Amino acid sequence: MVRKITKRLPVPSFLKQRKTTKKPGQAPGTLHFTGEQRLDHVLMNLYDYDAEQLSEHDLSKIEDSKPYLDSPSKTWINVCGLHDIEKLKEIWQYFELHPLIQEDILNTNQRSKIEEYPDHMFFVLRMMSFSEDTGVLNVEQVSIVLSSNSVLSFQEDDFPIYEPVLHRLRSGAPRLRNHGPDYLAYALIDTIVDHYFKVLEKLGDEIEDLENEILQESDEDIPQKIHALRRKLIFFRRSVWPMRDSLNSLLREESPLIDEENKVFFRDVYDHLVQIIDGVENYRDMALGMLDMHMSQVSNKMNEVMKVLTIIATIFIPLTFIAGIYGMNFEYMPELSVPWAYPAVWGIMIVAAVVMLFYFRKKKWL
Amino acid sequence: MVRKITKRLPVPSFLKQRKTTKKPGQAPGTLHFTGEQRLDHVLMNLYDYDAEQLSEHDLSKIEDSKPYLDSPSKTWINVCGLHDIEKLKEIWQYFELHPLIQEDILNTNQRSKIEEYPDHMFFVLRMMSFSEDTGVLNVEQVSIVLSSNSVLSFQEDDFPIYEPVLHRLRSGAPRLRNHGPDYLAYALIDTIVDHYFKVLEKLGDEIEDLENEILQESDEDIPQKIHALRRKLIFFRRSVWPMRDSLNSLLREESPLIDEENKVFFRDVYDHLVQIIDGVENYRDMALGMLDMHMSQVSNKMNEVMKVLTIIATIFIPLTFIAGIYGMNFEYMPELSVPWAYPAVWGIMIVAAVVMLFYFRKKKWL
Amino acid sequence: MVRKITKRLPVPSFLKQRKTTKKPGQAPGTLHFTGEQRLDHVLMNLYDYDAEQLSEHDLSKIEDSKPYLDSPSKTWINVCGLHDIEKLKEIWQYFELHPLIQEDILNTNQRSKIEEYPDHMFFVLRMMSFSEDTGVLNVEQVSIVLSSNSVLSFQEDDFPIYEPVLHRLRSGAPRLRNHGPDYLAYALIDTIVDHYFKVLEKLGDEIEDLENEILQESDEDIPQKIHALRRKLIFFRRSVWPMRDSLNSLLREESPLIDEENKVFFRDVYDHLVQIIDGVENYRDMALGMLDMHMSQVSNKMNEVMKVLTIIATIFIPLTFIAGIYGMNFEYMPELSVPWAYPAVWGIMIVAAVVMLFYFRKKKWL
Amino acid sequence: MVRKITKRLPVPSFLKQRKTTKKPGQAPGTLHFTGEQRLDHVLMNLYDYDAEQLSEHDLSKIEDSKPYLDSPSKTWINVCGLHDIEKLKEIWQYFELHPLIQEDILNTNQRSKIEEYPDHMFFVLRMMSFSEDTGVLNVEQVSIVLSSNSVLSFQEDDFPIYEPVLHRLRSGAPRLRNHGPDYLAYALIDTIVDHYFKVLEKLGDEIEDLENEILQESDEDIPQKIHALRRKLIFFRRSVWPMRDSLNSLLREESPLIDEENKVFFRDVYDHLVQIIDGVENYRDMALGMLDMHMSQVSNKMNEVMKVLTIIATIFIPLTFIAGIYGMNFEYMPELSVPWAYPAVWGIMIVAAVVMLFYFRKKKWL
Amino acid sequence: MVRKITKRLPVPSFLKQRKTTKKPGQAPGTLHFTGEQRLDHVLMNLYDYDAEQLSEHDLSKIEDSKPYLDSPSKTWINVCGLHDIEKLKEIWQYFELHPLIQEDILNTNQRSKIEEYPDHMFFVLRMMSFSEDTGVLNVEQVSIVLSSNSVLSFQEDDFPIYEPVLHRLRSGAPRLRNHGPDYLAYALIDTIVDHYFKVLEKLGDEIEDLENEILQESDEDIPQKIHALRRKLIFFRRSVWPMRDSLNSLLREESPLIDEENKVFFRDVYDHLVQIIDGVENYRDMALGMLDMHMSQVSNKMNEVMKVLTIIATIFIPLTFIAGIYGMNFEYMPELSVPWAYPAVWGIMIVAAVVMLFYFRKKKWL
Ligand SMILES: [Mg+2]
Ligand SMILES: [Mg+2]
Ligand SMILES: [Mg+2]
Ligand SMILES: [Mg+2]
Ligand SMILES: [Mg+2]
Ligand SMILES: [Mg+2]
Ligand SMILES: [Mg+2]
Ligand SMILES: [Mg+2]
Ligand SMILES: [Mg+2]
Ligand SMILES: [Mg+2]
Ligand SMILES: [Mg+2]
Ligand SMILES: [Mg+2]
Ligand SMILES: [Mg+2]
Ligand SMILES: [Mg+2]
Ligand SMILES: [Mg+2]
Ligand SMILES: [Mg+2]
Ligand SMILES: [Mg+2]
Ligand SMILES: [Mg+2]
Ligand SMILES: [Mg+2]
Ligand SMILES: [Mg+2]
Ligand SMILES: [Mg+2]
Ligand SMILES: [Mg+2]
Ligand SMILES: [Mg+2]
Ligand SMILES: [Mg+2]
Ligand SMILES: [Mg+2]
Ligand SMILES: [Mg+2]
Ligand SMILES: [Mg+2]
Ligand SMILES: [Mg+2]
Ligand SMILES: [Mg+2]
Ligand SMILES: [Mg+2]
Ligand SMILES: [Mg+2]
Repeated sequence: MVRKITKRLPVPSFLKQRKTTKKPGQAPGTLHFTGEQRLDHVLMNLYDYDAEQLSEHDLSKIEDSKPYLDSPSKTWINVCGLHDIEKLKEIWQYFELHPLIQEDILNTNQRSKIEEYPDHMFFVLRMMSFSEDTGVLNVEQVSIVLSSNSVLSFQEDDFPIYEPVLHRLRSGAPRLRNHGPDYLAYALIDTIVDHYFKVLEKLGDEIEDLENEILQESDEDIPQKIHALRRKLIFFRRSVWPMRDSLNSLLREESPLIDEENKVFFRDVYDHLVQIIDGVENYRDMALGMLDMHMSQVSNKMNEVMKVLTIIATIFIPLTFIAGIYGMNFEYMPELSVPWAYPAVWGIMIVAAVVMLFYFRKKKWL
Repeated sequence: MVRKITKRLPVPSFLKQRKTTKKPGQAPGTLHFTGEQRLDHVLMNLYDYDAEQLSEHDLSKIEDSKPYLDSPSKTWINVCGLHDIEKLKEIWQYFELHPLIQEDILNTNQRSKIEEYPDHMFFVLRMMSFSEDTGVLNVEQVSIVLSSNSVLSFQEDDFPIYEPVLHRLRSGAPRLRNHGPDYLAYALIDTIVDHYFKVLEKLGDEIEDLENEILQESDEDIPQKIHALRRKLIFFRRSVWPMRDSLNSLLREESPLIDEENKVFFRDVYDHLVQIIDGVENYRDMALGMLDMHMSQVSNKMNEVMKVLTIIATIFIPLTFIAGIYGMNFEYMPELSVPWAYPAVWGIMIVAAVVMLFYFRKKKWL
Repeated sequence: MVRKITKRLPVPSFLKQRKTTKKPGQAPGTLHFTGEQRLDHVLMNLYDYDAEQLSEHDLSKIEDSKPYLDSPSKTWINVCGLHDIEKLKEIWQYFELHPLIQEDILNTNQRSKIEEYPDHMFFVLRMMSFSEDTGVLNVEQVSIVLSSNSVLSFQEDDFPIYEPVLHRLRSGAPRLRNHGPDYLAYALIDTIVDHYFKVLEKLGDEIEDLENEILQESDEDIPQKIHALRRKLIFFRRSVWPMRDSLNSLLREESPLIDEENKVFFRDVYDHLVQIIDGVENYRDMALGMLDMHMSQVSNKMNEVMKVLTIIATIFIPLTFIAGIYGMNFEYMPELSVPWAYPAVWGIMIVAAVVMLFYFRKKKWL
Repeated sequence: MVRKITKRLPVPSFLKQRKTTKKPGQAPGTLHFTGEQRLDHVLMNLYDYDAEQLSEHDLSKIEDSKPYLDSPSKTWINVCGLHDIEKLKEIWQYFELHPLIQEDILNTNQRSKIEEYPDHMFFVLRMMSFSEDTGVLNVEQVSIVLSSNSVLSFQEDDFPIYEPVLHRLRSGAPRLRNHGPDYLAYALIDTIVDHYFKVLEKLGDEIEDLENEILQESDEDIPQKIHALRRKLIFFRRSVWPMRDSLNSLLREESPLIDEENKVFFRDVYDHLVQIIDGVENYRDMALGMLDMHMSQVSNKMNEVMKVLTIIATIFIPLTFIAGIYGMNFEYMPELSVPWAYPAVWGIMIVAAVVMLFYFRKKKWL
Repeated sequence: MVRKITKRLPVPSFLKQRKTTKKPGQAPGTLHFTGEQRLDHVLMNLYDYDAEQLSEHDLSKIEDSKPYLDSPSKTWINVCGLHDIEKLKEIWQYFELHPLIQEDILNTNQRSKIEEYPDHMFFVLRMMSFSEDTGVLNVEQVSIVLSSNSVLSFQEDDFPIYEPVLHRLRSGAPRLRNHGPDYLAYALIDTIVDHYFKVLEKLGDEIEDLENEILQESDEDIPQKIHALRRKLIFFRRSVWPMRDSLNSLLREESPLIDEENKVFFRDVYDHLVQIIDGVENYRDMALGMLDMHMSQVSNKMNEVMKVLTIIATIFIPLTFIAGIYGMNFEYMPELSVPWAYPAVWGIMIVAAVVMLFYFRKKKWL
């Protein structure tokens, strides 16, 4: 009969805070992976390309990449799986990555950011993508290290995030093959940001559904659903927002690793992020407005319940009083023996009820 | 009898999010039109003018514009219809537009913005205009590409947005005919921004109507109407706000495409946008205030209902109790046989009722 | 008996949005007066002064000002009435005002601002002043054009705003007579800003009255009054705020029209505006706090009403039940014939009532 | 019996807005004292000091300060009382203070600020101090004029604000005696800011008391008390905030009057102000939180009242109905003559009551 | 039976404001310890190290540190205990610390900050750490003074905060031993910031617990618990926030005491702080959302209570009225003698009840 919020909506796993396992006070570069193992082995795929050719290799040892890195062609190495720290250490030492970069690649609670180091540009992003089959949201942290001649990318599992870029590489897309590794880094980041639009659309659908539910006054856990939606929006906004600020800095500063001419592409990614954040803000405002609307519906219903109670009570309580009067057992009650008294009492009662109904109508309660 | 929010107010089509059809990871410049087709054919109108002359031409092929573009007179080409990507591609390639410009012209979810490219200045705006006949709000995305000697403008359908500018061109308005294409770009943008004032006025009327409805306590879906109004205000504000920031940057930076002397006109557009945003913010504050006022009216009504119930119940319940006492069937109830007992009970009841009425009056419930 | 918000408080005319009559797309400098005609004729008063002398003249043609403008003495021309566009055009063309200045003088919806043009500094302000007789708030837009040798001021009617400045000019105030026209412009603006303090005081009185009304729980349309007050505060704040920002820019930038030494006076006006805005913000916070206080009073009253109802019902409903029991007509009810049954029932009832009264006292409902 | 907010809490005098007596449009430097006279005579105390000596003098004429000002030793003149404008004018003209400084010294509604003039640095602060005897908060405006060789300070009455500084001067504190007048100005300002900490602590105590009252559900005018507290917090914050911004500017800019080496001390004052504002913000947040907590307690109580009413009514109304049935006087009611009918009805009633009690327990209403 | 908030949750001691004992107006460097004594004696531990060696010494006199400070190896002195001002003064005078540094070390109400002085860089932080045994949160103020060749650190008691750094020193960690004292200062600060993550996780657990409690509608003092949580979040945020701003300034400015190359490590600390603040903001938003959810649950319950009352009253009050009618004692009531009247009345009553039950079902009250 009554509405209750008893069953908790399942919290999506990406909303659960990952625990830090690092102990306070350890040296920078002390390595702890904060996620869960998603792959059996660390996978390393190398792509070596320039305008003329593309060669692909599965690496088993990082040292095998030497000929490609030494050649003038550009090299992209994509590493899947972050649980095997020893293996990763070999890669990092080979590329002489700063210990702070190493630490951040493993700490998958990272805020999105872009950091410049002497020989590297380091990007961290949160990849969010719906699996086309299951509709489940896949969230993982992605790192990209841009050097003067190569791109090194890390991801938690082997989700084919970069498939479309690979496809363009293979089909010989001229811009991608001709430009430097900075353009490749842009292409990777752009792919990730494009996925955000899909997530935003899904959130938009969810908001629309919820709005419909509220309007149909289906009492199914509305406040809880709004709360859950707001948590998702906050999570999404926090994933996207810092990337925007980082890109803004990147656009304003000069770096030897990023060609001035290619900045227009990074500006486009920035522009997309602004658009996405704009959309999230919009949804946040709508979520707040929906809560207001729901609360005022609850008030309205309470008002309605109160009116029914008041109308019934106001009409019948006085009438019952009159009936009570003539139910008294006094010996000397002259009205009792008047023959037309009973119909007269009925008359009085009907008049009283009609008067009160008019009063309620005047008050617009009916 | 009771207020309910059952029928959903129709959501205007411009508030519906347009779906992105672009797949994540595609190359920049991969072209997808995100709107709906509004015209049969792409229309191209060319206007070639200088202080002395104006000539107008309907182009069927973009190559036909060559003589006008090569001549020292200024050239404006207005393109209507964005669905025929092949046709548009020809135009863009002829003008050597950057692939990112091409992408943005087609993506009609764009935030308003001004972007500088090596040889072009690119403007995207959202045009909003009430049809004079039907009163329906027409929303479409408009793009303007300013070159050193020409202006290229794109719109989704053939709504005669720029009619007034054309009229001034034809009637030989000296400033427009004498100044460079940057002044023409200003004139086009100014026309669009002037329409915003009309939209703002309409929103102001809507707010006033809603305020009156609230004051007359007509219970017709107030929270839903406020919610709908807030959505419109958010949409309008999001359409206008980014243009203000872009213009601000334009005013502060130097560009070879914009004459310093003409910046005073762009400053005027900026000023108009500030005024419009000021108005929207004002309406947002008023919308919030109206919700507060409505909620407190609902509270007041509940209070009123409660008072009626309380007064009736408080007066009659004790009287009914007294009547109940003398309705008991005990054999030994000495009062029952006292001749003046019945009128005495009436007296007691009347006194009790009067006392309670005084109490309510003292409490200001009556 | 019950509180209702039926009569709408009159909205002061200055809160009503003035309609734009300008059509979208017209050329800058297309002139439309957006206010209402307040004077029969345009009035032009010329004051020519330097340290030694002051001469005053009513002009009928603007050309008559030539000798004064050509002489080294400073010249101030005050123009009252904005409805006669032809007349105004003559003035503006004589002074070669930029078309955007002309447009802004007539558009009396203007936000306050300061704009620099090649030969002029242009100020727009909103004058607000209480008529000393009627107490009515007079709101009009005022424009000031500062040139190297003269000040040109425009107002909507002939309200003697600048009387005190005139008085100082006539009485030979040395600073005013010695300094350049920039100091005169300062004096005019300062006069307008001084009036804001009076308006702020009046708003402060209104807030205090409203606070008293709330504390005395006089239910006279409190939410509506708070809403009206908030609208006034928003209007006032929006009139003052942009002037502060404009003055801030003026102080930071160099202009040939404003003597560095006189900037200390403009800084003082800036300081006054900051103080006024501070006061308005304070009142806005207080208005929000008053709404909170009122809402919690309404809650408290509802609570009180509920308690009365609950006490009465809780005491009498059980007693009435007992009376009902012994009003039943069963043949075999042994209690009915016990002689002390009737007083015993009375005793039980009194005990029950006393117990419940103690319970309510313990709950602090009594 | 019921809670009411009838008696208004007394508003402390410092919260009352002081009226401006200055008329709009008067020349800068037109002098009006906006406070109330607190002293009979203007008092002038002169302190002349350097590393070796300190001499103290009560001045009757400002000209008597000439020898001390001309000597290389530093001079501090403290002026108490602002009501005797003629006397003050003599002082100001002797020191050639700018008319805008004169105006601000008298206008005791001033926002705190620091202003640089050609030969002076001008400080205005709001002094707030609890009288040690009475616990009353003393609020007055304090002005300090720093010159290259002297400090001139003004206060509204003779409250011994600067006693501790004087004490340090007399006891030969080396830093104070060796450094220039800028260090003395710092010492005076620091003293005033130190008092703010005491005020902040007192406000903290008040908040703690109020929090306890709310938790003990003592219904004594909670919303009114929270409102009063918020007003005090706003007043305090507005007194302190502008000083922070002014000091921040002072620290960033160079001035011939303030030794770079002494800026570290002004930075310390700045730091104290930041800490104080931090505390006030904290209290503002807590005050908001307390209102939320109080409102939810009121809701809870209403809920509790409703439950009592509902339990009583739900149990007894059906029982009374049953009793009513058998109180009817129909001739043919077979139950009435069944001997065990009366106890059976009792049984039914008891069962019904027990069932309902179980239902309430299941709903956790009991 | 009813929910009440009577017992106050204990306020953790670190939330209690520490009283300032300093009197207003005292000279800078007048020393007062605002905390409570936590140790018997001041402890001084000296660590002298370079790439080759590490020597550790317990100092009884600060002068004993001379040989280590004069040698080229780096020196770290950690001082535990702040109650013995005489002892501390000796240390400070030996290091020629600025009086404002001295004051800040003792004033344990300090906001976190980084201040540059001529020969020192001064850091103040709030250390927060859970005791591993008791789970109690230990809060104390920590100061670090960085000189060109040494680090001087102060803490309130002998909590082994820096144990992990010491461990790394002893085990010969190359970066720590090779870099200058600025790297040691970084390591100390980093250790403190690492603890913040643990505190943040604990707060996250608390929020999750509270969210569960709200969803299970366990009425145990929810508003009070949310209030307590918000206070903790505010305290935590205020402890962390200012450090972020200070580090940001440090990163942007050049200082002879901090090697440009080491700034990347300070940037990492900055990054951690940003992440922590992000988390706190997230929790603040969730705490607000939880309050909304709780309030709407309370509304829902009230609604439910009202419905039960209304259903019972609406069904039985009219029926009781009918029974009352036939309980009247009029002599002429023809229905009373009709044999089927009694069952007919029962029929009418049952029909009325069924109709009303249908009505409630239609309204979705059942
Ligand atoms: Mg926002
Ligand atoms: Mg927002
Ligand atoms: Mg928002
Ligand atoms: Mg927003
Ligand atoms: Mg907002
Ligand atoms: Mg908001
Ligand atoms: Mg809010
Ligand atoms: Mg806003
Ligand atoms: Mg707003
Ligand atoms: Mg605003
Ligand atoms: Mg606003
Ligand atoms: Mg606001
Ligand atoms: Mg709000
Ligand atoms: Mg505000
Ligand atoms: Mg504010
Ligand atoms: Mg505010
Ligand atoms: Mg605020
Ligand atoms: Mg505010
Ligand atoms: Mg608020
Ligand atoms: Mg705040
Ligand atoms: Mg705050
Ligand atoms: Mg804050
Ligand atoms: Mg906040
Ligand atoms: Mg805050
Ligand atoms: Mg808030
Ligand atoms: Mg926030
Ligand atoms: Mg927040
Ligand atoms: Mg946030
Ligand atoms: Mg927030
Ligand atoms: Mg926010
Ligand atoms: Mg709020």
